[in-house]
Amino acid sequence: MPETEPQQTTAPGPATAYDATGRTVPTRSRERASYDREQVHSILDEAYVCHLGFVRDGAPVVLPTLFGRVGERLYVHGSTGSRPLRAADGSDEGLAVCLTVTHVDGLVLARSAFHHSLNYRSVVVHGMAHTVTDPEERRVALDAIVEQVVPGRSKDSRPADEKELAATAVIRLDLREVSAKIRTGGPNDDARDLALPHWSGVVPLAPGYATPVPADDLDPSIAVPEYLKAL
Amino acid sequence: MPETEPQQTTAPGPATAYDATGRTVPTRSRERASYDREQVHSILDEAYVCHLGFVRDGAPVVLPTLFGRVGERLYVHGSTGSRPLRAADGSDEGLAVCLTVTHVDGLVLARSAFHHSLNYRSVVVHGMAHTVTDPEERRVALDAIVEQVVPGRSKDSRPADEKELAATAVIRLDLREVSAKIRTGGPNDDARDLALPHWSGVVPLAPGYATPVPADDLDPSIAVPEYLKAL
Repeated sequence: MPETEPQQTTAPGPATAYDATGRTVPTRSRERASYDREQVHSILDEAYVCHLGFVRDGAPVVLPTLFGRVGERLYVHGSTGSRPLRAADGSDEGLAVCLTVTHVDGLVLARSAFHHSLNYRSVVVHGMAHTVTDPEERRVALDAIVEQVVPGRSKDSRPADEKELAATAVIRLDLREVSAKIRTGGPNDDARDLALPHWSGVVPLAPGYATPVPADDLDPSIAVPEYLKAL
Repeated sequence: MPETEPQQTTAPGPATAYDATGRTVPTRSRERASYDREQVHSILDEAYVCHLGFVRDGAPVVLPTLFGRVGERLYVHGSTGSRPLRAADGSDEGLAVCLTVTHVDGLVLARSAFHHSLNYRSVVVHGMAHTVTDPEERRVALDAIVEQVVPGRSKDSRPADEKELAATAVIRLDLREVSAKIRTGGPNDDARDLALPHWSGVVPLAPGYATPVPADDLDPSIAVPEYLKAL
């Protein structure tokens, strides 16, 4: 989304990193934490599903949902009837949410059960989500959510009409209180375990895209677009 | 995990399905909801990462973590210093959590931006998580978490010793208030959009496992085990 991206600077300081807060500093494996803005953006941009947490009747609720990023803002959309979107709308201060994105890059198999792990990249965003009412911002947000799933797709589909827009709620969460956590590399076995006869290493994982399957009612003269071949 | 699985029955009734509750009935797309026990188990068993939500200082927190299933119980482990595990330990009634597992099976591209969707299978479990103190249950839980990542691996690694066990907290969440949500099939375009020139269909997605990478310090005479080739 380069056109809406804030100008990046190469100078050190707050522009290149998010400020750590009490809840973005992990209690464990602090060396895996990152507040680097570009790294956070890149982890977010590789995903299109997040897990959105909110509190209902004092209890946590975690739901998977699509999202989109525009600069320092994340957007989530849904039916105007959905619970978190209604809750965000009913309050001036917004709805407290936690939005988490996770990529699993590998299964880390150590000789000891204890040191089994995953290679992963995750981003956790804390903050207040607000309902977006400005019509232009709503359109930008909805395009961003489609682009997040398949870059290039928002220009190759019919935009939402007035009736569809009226049925769609959009909430915004600013990237302020945010951290990434990253594990890479092989297993960290104890020295005493190195001679054990168990295979040890990493099974790399990546999402596999299969050949696109046209809709039953698609005109066969419409070819698979280039932006899908690039996935 | 067949040895710990409760006996399945083919008769209809509560044994084959979870009871729906206020918070397991979705406000939208109710036709996608399922309470079928076998279906819920199968979605859980295909995953090894869940997103665990809990409430801290009144705000939601969502963290990715490994988990394991043993019959009607889910287990999550972590350092005894980790926040949710400490919180579960400090309370007799347990810690209110929401544990969510999501598989994305396809990107659903409709002619209209509005009807874009995902094919997915998710499970959402609500309940109180309790710290597991029984040594035998803790061992079963830790084995299950390793087995959930790679079936067959728990017997091909060194089990946790006393010191490692002492550093590991395990919490349990029973499968009581639970639902699955499933979307399959192609896009649902409006009749008025069928003649639009946009490609429409599904891009299938599945996790791709690459060739296992041995640890730098692995004895080259140790071959890749069969249970990894089966992934």
